[in-house]
Amino acid sequence: MHDSKPVLSKNIKITDAFWKEKAELIRTEVIPYQWKALNDEIENAEPSYSLRNLRLAAECIEKRKKGIKTPVFPTNEWHYRPNSKNENAFYGWIFQDSDLYKWIEAVSYSLQNTADKKLEALADKAIGLICSSQNENGYINSFYTINNPEKSFTNLRDHHELYCFGHLAEAAVAYYNTTGKNRLLNAACRFADLLCDEFGANGRKGYGGHEIAEMALIKLYEATGAEKYLSLAKLFIDRRGTKPYYFDLERNENSDDKLNYFYNQAHLPVREQKEAVGHAVRAVYLYSGMADAARYTKDEALFDACKTLFNDITEKKMYITGGIGSTKDGEAFTFAYDLPNDLAYSETCASIGLVFFARRMLQADFDSKYADIMERCLYNSILSGMAEDGKSFFYVNPLEVNPEACKKDSRKSHVKPVRQKWFDCACCPPNLARIISDYAEYCFTETEDTLFVNLYQSADIKTDKADIKIISDYLTSGSVSFKIKAKREFKLALRIPYWSSNFKFSKQNPFIRKGYAYFDIENDEELTAEYNPEIRIVKCNSNVRENIGKAAVARGPIVYCLEEKDNGEKLHLLRLSRKPKFSFDGEAITANGYKEEITSNKLYLEYKDAFEKPVRLKFIPYYKWANRGENEMSVYIRY
Amino acid sequence: MHDSKPVLSKNIKITDAFWKEKAELIRTEVIPYQWKALNDEIENAEPSYSLRNLRLAAECIEKRKKGIKTPVFPTNEWHYRPNSKNENAFYGWIFQDSDLYKWIEAVSYSLQNTADKKLEALADKAIGLICSSQNENGYINSFYTINNPEKSFTNLRDHHELYCFGHLAEAAVAYYNTTGKNRLLNAACRFADLLCDEFGANGRKGYGGHEIAEMALIKLYEATGAEKYLSLAKLFIDRRGTKPYYFDLERNENSDDKLNYFYNQAHLPVREQKEAVGHAVRAVYLYSGMADAARYTKDEALFDACKTLFNDITEKKMYITGGIGSTKDGEAFTFAYDLPNDLAYSETCASIGLVFFARRMLQADFDSKYADIMERCLYNSILSGMAEDGKSFFYVNPLEVNPEACKKDSRKSHVKPVRQKWFDCACCPPNLARIISDYAEYCFTETEDTLFVNLYQSADIKTDKADIKIISDYLTSGSVSFKIKAKREFKLALRIPYWSSNFKFSKQNPFIRKGYAYFDIENDEELTAEYNPEIRIVKCNSNVRENIGKAAVARGPIVYCLEEKDNGEKLHLLRLSRKPKFSFDGEAITANGYKEEITSNKLYLEYKDAFEKPVRLKFIPYYKWANRGENEMSVYIRY
Repeated sequence: MHDSKPVLSKNIKITDAFWKEKAELIRTEVIPYQWKALNDEIENAEPSYSLRNLRLAAECIEKRKKGIKTPVFPTNEWHYRPNSKNENAFYGWIFQDSDLYKWIEAVSYSLQNTADKKLEALADKAIGLICSSQNENGYINSFYTINNPEKSFTNLRDHHELYCFGHLAEAAVAYYNTTGKNRLLNAACRFADLLCDEFGANGRKGYGGHEIAEMALIKLYEATGAEKYLSLAKLFIDRRGTKPYYFDLERNENSDDKLNYFYNQAHLPVREQKEAVGHAVRAVYLYSGMADAARYTKDEALFDACKTLFNDITEKKMYITGGIGSTKDGEAFTFAYDLPNDLAYSETCASIGLVFFARRMLQADFDSKYADIMERCLYNSILSGMAEDGKSFFYVNPLEVNPEACKKDSRKSHVKPVRQKWFDCACCPPNLARIISDYAEYCFTETEDTLFVNLYQSADIKTDKADIKIISDYLTSGSVSFKIKAKREFKLALRIPYWSSNFKFSKQNPFIRKGYAYFDIENDEELTAEYNPEIRIVKCNSNVRENIGKAAVARGPIVYCLEEKDNGEKLHLLRLSRKPKFSFDGEAITANGYKEEITSNKLYLEYKDAFEKPVRLKFIPYYKWANRGENEMSVYIRY
Repeated sequence: MHDSKPVLSKNIKITDAFWKEKAELIRTEVIPYQWKALNDEIENAEPSYSLRNLRLAAECIEKRKKGIKTPVFPTNEWHYRPNSKNENAFYGWIFQDSDLYKWIEAVSYSLQNTADKKLEALADKAIGLICSSQNENGYINSFYTINNPEKSFTNLRDHHELYCFGHLAEAAVAYYNTTGKNRLLNAACRFADLLCDEFGANGRKGYGGHEIAEMALIKLYEATGAEKYLSLAKLFIDRRGTKPYYFDLERNENSDDKLNYFYNQAHLPVREQKEAVGHAVRAVYLYSGMADAARYTKDEALFDACKTLFNDITEKKMYITGGIGSTKDGEAFTFAYDLPNDLAYSETCASIGLVFFARRMLQADFDSKYADIMERCLYNSILSGMAEDGKSFFYVNPLEVNPEACKKDSRKSHVKPVRQKWFDCACCPPNLARIISDYAEYCFTETEDTLFVNLYQSADIKTDKADIKIISDYLTSGSVSFKIKAKREFKLALRIPYWSSNFKFSKQNPFIRKGYAYFDIENDEELTAEYNPEIRIVKCNSNVRENIGKAAVARGPIVYCLEEKDNGEKLHLLRLSRKPKFSFDGEAITANGYKEEITSNKLYLEYKDAFEKPVRLKFIPYYKWANRGENEMSVYIRY
């Protein structure tokens, strides 16, 4: 196991047209829009209640300090709606706080990219509110603080306190790293200290039902150097799935529903888990924490478990877009090669989590496959989560959509044919905002002697090894040039993208290992890589039943799709020509194909060769689908 | 609209090897097995509680007659399990009585085929029990009689009293027709008289949430000549879906959930219903009653509605096997051309109901398409519901099964890869028993001057027109000969099966209308029909997304399928040769095809032509699948 660190985003300036535009969209549209959403100010959208709940929690704290009793409300549900009897109770999903934390994290990264005093002031205000909702013992969670503090930590399996803590800690570290302000960091540390007391080596042997605390504690460790946070993360990981099951203990049960713990990845000790199972977001958040913990504690067995799980996902359970989670039932993984296009869940958050996991694997194992997966997710299933105007979002990212089925077939009711303004359970939009704002931090990693370029885009970076100006035409011609001002001798390691079969470097004879080309840099120089993206016809492994006899079209990192707007209705009637002639206009791809004409009204008829008319097929990037209203979409086409 | 009557089964003796064997299986295996099931005597199978409930109801009646109060139990659930507090309450589904009624009906038809004194005695005993559970006012329903008689008729939408009445009436008529014994018929008439009082022209404007009473009342009318039963059937039909909705009135609501009444086909007045919607069994039971009512009352508008609905089902919503109901959610129809193979519901009962509907349409419209549908259902989706040994059953009849998915993907948890011994909700097995025992009654219909042969099998029939000996080799060579002893001049109308493109008759120049060949018969003669079944490669309408690029294999009325036992695992890798050479061994079909070899472990790879090895594909009749243990099955194959 190796070790590397990301080049911090404060040392990176993304100048890339593509990614800078996305970050600007987040800054100018998504972050302000989400602030409104968190304040329940979006008309005809589900209220968030995030700020409302935190204000109420702060009031409860204030009252209790003064010795005023606050009413007790039930804590046995996952979701609460306003009614005449619960005016002063918590509203919304029990994990609603986390949306604000993710917003603060997104703001932090955005401020790193572009200073914005007004936005910073808004974040400071939100942070003030969060801090005033903190209990004396350090506990922060508006749900239990409002409804019944005595019930806190009684239902780790379902009740997301450790999940909300995790997002709080991640936001606190991000805000501290960007602004140097430590108010939220201190609050998060106080909460973490409470967790160390409650759940440390001498505490209860609990762990969270929705993982994230593991990687969040490690972020706190990175920010503060306090070993105890790393230790608690390790405890959470090591305890998971051991018997007696903590989730049984906390409800005083010894039930037969161990099978349910698959959902929480708590069915087996993590080192014995060979297959990614259960809720997909939870799974990749856990694995991310495991990868970090393995690297920091040099735990090879734990890292091996991570490798097995990473391979299981990416070799058997991942859509071509980087989407994961094949079923809406539990938002979960199903089984190997079960990748239905039209029933897919492929939650935006799950792909984001897969990027977290991949980056952490890459930090310890310098293999391009991890960065390939980051790239696949970012350009496809993650960007698809947001409309081009930044004002609507997908939670579910299917690979095939027939709007009629979404409306008339309850099995597809989770598939929305157009992006939604906001969600009752709104985890995805702020998660998108934070990863896109933080894009820079995924691009480069370094060791003492090597600088790794994992993702390609125009950027200026400063490290102790060199200042480098990167001019990228990666998505179009595939050419990327590096103007290097060397400060000392080092190795520049350039990822060779998985899709590039015809790459060339201006500097000859690099050493190639695990998909990276290593160049010895001694002096200032200019180095150019040509990755030559070609239009590829991609076949899915034939174990995937749904895609037998079908192909997808891709170019560079971008997976393409067909939309009804371009190709007419009933996309399943289309077929790609055996030897298609492609053309590429810088964005869309066209190719020759055929469309079957429906010539009979009979439901069953004697087989005759279909009457097909030649058509020009138009493919657009998958992430751009559903930006022109409701229509059919398909990634795969018969071939 | 025409009018015809079935030739009564007492005038038909089925001598056909295929159908006689099935009827014998019902008589010797299924009926005794189901008697055990109804008595909760099958180990490791869900208890039925049918007999137990009726005994308890009879005790309640007895006690109340003596002025002894019986305890009151809740009536607000659909299903009740035993617990320590409800020893004397109703158990199981609220419609559990109906399983015994269907059993009595099956016994009735079976006794018609083969006298069996012991079986008749058992039925008499059951009938005695049912009659002793009848309330003084005529009401029969063990659920309300036990739990709370005062609540009867308060929830027609959900609580199946009219459904249970319907099955009671159908059993009573069948038992009377076979044995001449009228005890059950009298009980059913007393119950029907109560319904006429409660829901007649001057009563409450109700109708049943689960239809069947409509066609059952018409059977009572046919058996007794009492017009009031036909009138009540007509009222139930005419009221359905009119405003204010009775289902709102009975719960004192004016809710917004009209959409829910789609489930019960009560969203619109029946004459305005143009599409088959909701629970598939309910739908076809209603339409059957509508067709009967239209014929008896010469209601052309009602019959037009039936035609529209029949065409909607059979031209847009029916599997090639005759299965209907594409989704488990509500066991329901979805929308036109939505016919997923692996997610299919295709309940055995729904295909049985479609045969009921088709026969009734045929009685009024002498079009072979109705008999074609009866044949399609009987030989495929109905027979598939039962194992070859008559000891296990399918409720759901999918067109494609991957056993791994049934276990690991909750979306397919309704699909069982092997037949089950019994069901918690056991509507299908006794429904199968009654239709297979009653097969004879579907074969022939007649008017004053014409005898229609709708289904082909060896049989001896006696009518006032002729005695006919039919010698059939229909399933093998397609030849059927008729030895006619004419009693007077008449027309013999032979259905030309939809699958026969090369038919020949020994008697020349029949008049052909709507798929029937009409022959004038004046004297004794022998007439032979040659339908020459060929192996057909069948294409599904291209609007069906799931089957584009695929074909099914059929021969005569029988749809074929591939099983893993014969063709190895991963059936989706198989492809039928473009110009297949078929062979037929009297049952199985073989053909040349290809199987793709999986040559890469990669999940996504550059498209290359698949490496395929030539294989000999083996197809077996669909109804025979899953008789050799758990394995993959597929009706469709890539072509």
